[in-house]
Amino acid sequence: MTATLLVSCPDRKGIVASLAQLLYGQGANILDADQHSDEVAGMFFQRIRFDATDLDRAALEVALAPLAAEFGMAYRLVYKETVRRVAIYASKLEHCLYDLLVRHRARELPCEIAMIVSNHAEPASIADHFGVPFHHLAPRDEARHFAILDDARVDLVVLARYMQILSPAFVARYPSRIINIHHSFLPAFVGANPYRQAYEKGVKMIGATSHYVTEELDQGPIIEQATVRCAHGDSIDDLVRKGRDLERHVLAAAVRWHLEDRILVYAGKTVVFD
Amino acid sequence: MTATLLVSCPDRKGIVASLAQLLYGQGANILDADQHSDEVAGMFFQRIRFDATDLDRAALEVALAPLAAEFGMAYRLVYKETVRRVAIYASKLEHCLYDLLVRHRARELPCEIAMIVSNHAEPASIADHFGVPFHHLAPRDEARHFAILDDARVDLVVLARYMQILSPAFVARYPSRIINIHHSFLPAFVGANPYRQAYEKGVKMIGATSHYVTEELDQGPIIEQATVRCAHGDSIDDLVRKGRDLERHVLAAAVRWHLEDRILVYAGKTVVFD
Amino acid sequence: MTATLLVSCPDRKGIVASLAQLLYGQGANILDADQHSDEVAGMFFQRIRFDATDLDRAALEVALAPLAAEFGMAYRLVYKETVRRVAIYASKLEHCLYDLLVRHRARELPCEIAMIVSNHAEPASIADHFGVPFHHLAPRDEARHFAILDDARVDLVVLARYMQILSPAFVARYPSRIINIHHSFLPAFVGANPYRQAYEKGVKMIGATSHYVTEELDQGPIIEQATVRCAHGDSIDDLVRKGRDLERHVLAAAVRWHLEDRILVYAGKTVVFD
Amino acid sequence: MTATLLVSCPDRKGIVASLAQLLYGQGANILDADQHSDEVAGMFFQRIRFDATDLDRAALEVALAPLAAEFGMAYRLVYKETVRRVAIYASKLEHCLYDLLVRHRARELPCEIAMIVSNHAEPASIADHFGVPFHHLAPRDEARHFAILDDARVDLVVLARYMQILSPAFVARYPSRIINIHHSFLPAFVGANPYRQAYEKGVKMIGATSHYVTEELDQGPIIEQATVRCAHGDSIDDLVRKGRDLERHVLAAAVRWHLEDRILVYAGKTVVFD
Repeated sequence: MTATLLVSCPDRKGIVASLAQLLYGQGANILDADQHSDEVAGMFFQRIRFDATDLDRAALEVALAPLAAEFGMAYRLVYKETVRRVAIYASKLEHCLYDLLVRHRARELPCEIAMIVSNHAEPASIADHFGVPFHHLAPRDEARHFAILDDARVDLVVLARYMQILSPAFVARYPSRIINIHHSFLPAFVGANPYRQAYEKGVKMIGATSHYVTEELDQGPIIEQATVRCAHGDSIDDLVRKGRDLERHVLAAAVRWHLEDRILVYAGKTVVFD
Repeated sequence: MTATLLVSCPDRKGIVASLAQLLYGQGANILDADQHSDEVAGMFFQRIRFDATDLDRAALEVALAPLAAEFGMAYRLVYKETVRRVAIYASKLEHCLYDLLVRHRARELPCEIAMIVSNHAEPASIADHFGVPFHHLAPRDEARHFAILDDARVDLVVLARYMQILSPAFVARYPSRIINIHHSFLPAFVGANPYRQAYEKGVKMIGATSHYVTEELDQGPIIEQATVRCAHGDSIDDLVRKGRDLERHVLAAAVRWHLEDRILVYAGKTVVFD
Repeated sequence: MTATLLVSCPDRKGIVASLAQLLYGQGANILDADQHSDEVAGMFFQRIRFDATDLDRAALEVALAPLAAEFGMAYRLVYKETVRRVAIYASKLEHCLYDLLVRHRARELPCEIAMIVSNHAEPASIADHFGVPFHHLAPRDEARHFAILDDARVDLVVLARYMQILSPAFVARYPSRIINIHHSFLPAFVGANPYRQAYEKGVKMIGATSHYVTEELDQGPIIEQATVRCAHGDSIDDLVRKGRDLERHVLAAAVRWHLEDRILVYAGKTVVFD
Repeated sequence: MTATLLVSCPDRKGIVASLAQLLYGQGANILDADQHSDEVAGMFFQRIRFDATDLDRAALEVALAPLAAEFGMAYRLVYKETVRRVAIYASKLEHCLYDLLVRHRARELPCEIAMIVSNHAEPASIADHFGVPFHHLAPRDEARHFAILDDARVDLVVLARYMQILSPAFVARYPSRIINIHHSFLPAFVGANPYRQAYEKGVKMIGATSHYVTEELDQGPIIEQATVRCAHGDSIDDLVRKGRDLERHVLAAAVRWHLEDRILVYAGKTVVFD
């Protein structure tokens, strides 16, 4: 049984040693440790994955509290038996939806797909094929969304080319727990029709960006990006086709990293311990 | 002896056949032909490289004139013995300057480097090592720039991280004949300090863009772009270092394609027959 | 109605003009023409896509015959209404199978999926979901394979991680019409377990290769390749996961190009007009 | 003043904590720590970069000895004021030589370039321009090579497209301290003329590989690799040109990582903490 500890605090001498010593003292064997110091912001971040088999979890929590207080540390401790429950939101475009479901079947995504939600009826047959509950919900009826998500104890909402904008209230319920895919290399081409914008500008590469959703559209912390070459011969349809591959890849990476507790958010950006 | 014919005109039936037939009739053997139809703009573009050894050049020009008139065709015909003369403009950063000079030595760039121009004195020793004339010129003294460029019959101006803005008058003298390197993935991060902007935004890839210079800063037709992954651990200095590799690559590609007559400009973008 | 003409012949003066003139004379409007001369082999290759709406097909064939004879030309002429029929062979791994089916649904692959064939029973439910006939066939019973393929008029066989070796007789029935995906950057790591080989060698990139199947295992003409970075931290399982993305991408590209008549095979390699 | 500690030992509980505690106890502030466990080999590797300003170096060595003994640990401890001295070996091809020298000037490579050695006289002017001593030496006269390298206290030998094979005696003097660039994606295309081999095979990507030199030609531990797309239209000369960019990039990265003490070698491969 492994566990993951994610830590962020003001940078200071002795943090690494103190944490390592504390975990060792509690019987935890460190399997992986990755860290980052943002010298500009003066912040320290660490991800420690450890073997928690021989460990008294209550005792660990008791030991962590004073250390966290001393260093002004925010932390998150996740044991591997915790299986996150994910809701995938989709509209008419199916490629990201299929991609996540196929990857889940291949055990790439350590989670349960709790439900598929759509403003269209069509994804029902896909949900059925993969044995996932399906909800056809009007975007405006947020109370119903919240009830269904709560009822299924959903931890993470993935917008897999869901073509609706979530309300501030929705976003506020899932801070750093809604992942969206934007079909451009942000911050280039925010807003609608990025492939058309890219075509008209005549860029030689297009991109895709997965990010956490915040109140401001297309401005949330970027998790992953990818690009691919294009050329004068590519029609907008070609860009859309090439972009689909990027979108799938970039969204799946973000979801996997989130589920593996590899992402920390601060100052409007992400630390991804991959 | 090869020649290259670059053609653009409204798209119409029979252009390809008419041109192929005309060239064949004049004794030209077509080595390469590449074409592009922009269906949105209704425009046709073609690049034909042919063996011009057995060909009467005057007769070819005479034959082309009525065809061009019939199809409303703009064309450019370049024989390979024409050696373009290039001025490289640089400031303090040397990496793009060195890169172009080393590639020229390795015969990657079919041109003569007519001169290096700088607002700093330091590049003089580099110019000297490569046996290229050097001019240390104040940016404001444009009359002198023009005189020296004219005197050396310069065809192409390459801004190799030249940190000065050219006047509209300068730009107007060399339409689609000034190539600049911008150190971001345009249109993201226009203006100053793009690496700092990228760092602050927390993007996961950075890029570089080579483009023809137009009056509007950072808005000219894009010739080539490239990107590279970055991560939370990259400082601004790391981004600058990674970016240098992109800048070199992207600028050199643009210069080479220009010199090989592979680029057509229209509607604020480029067709690159590579 | 468009048509595509694929041509190969010994390189000689006048081919381009003769073909362009012939097509124009028959009322064909050339939409796209791409060509390649292999100077080492002395061979010429061309792909011409033209509007065939106003064209007398029989007359075109009559006109082509003497030209083909004169230039020693092999050619293939395909009208767009011809819909190729594809058989996908799969074993237990599903990712390439799903990928092709999802892309077909998104209209990326201009063909009919005539059937899915497997040496396992499991893909039946996938075939069912996508509405494709399924055949569970023992690899050895080739007579039955041939009968079913013939009966369904299959043009192209795609081995989507089909873990069986086809007999020479099978291969001979579909020359340059069986596409396989090999999970390495050929010619590195031929044979079994390429990801394990890559892990043991400690390479810093892994790849995937799609190719036409010939009698000699893993030696057929390469159609497409892609690579992705890996590092010391990647386990064999990580390589397998990263590789799946490459495999999907590289196989789908090969199938699409084949269906769009973009590929010519000669001298053990391919010309891909993309 | 920073220092870097590189550690390898059999994997065991408590290593991370023991090292962190020891360094902390000696007054070292850990700036960066990266680690890797090879579960197959049962080995543990760590790179710790720490602030050594307030630290008694002798005391640190004394404290490390028993810990190293306890865990069966091999370690290397480098203080940043240690400036490595590098010899660059080159033949007629200049691109990698220029590249390293230009990067060194831009402060990308933390070392002194102690000398350039060549079996040709031509690089003398390049050495002169960059102010580096030059030795024109016959490859066979190894005694002279050794004398000159020893005399200049050279730590690292970089073969920048040096077209000679070093003797086993030469290799044995610099274990994991000779870096070579091979112009293919190893293990594909070992031996001579890899670009010709790639052309003949018809691959769709070419690569370059930097590696430590061992007795067995082209078989040493791989440090870095990169690839670039190619196509049927690329002549061998085009592959050579494209390859030059890869070679420069891949060699420079290997040299920089070596100089920053980011590389550990074991079991014929490398751990690169980048």
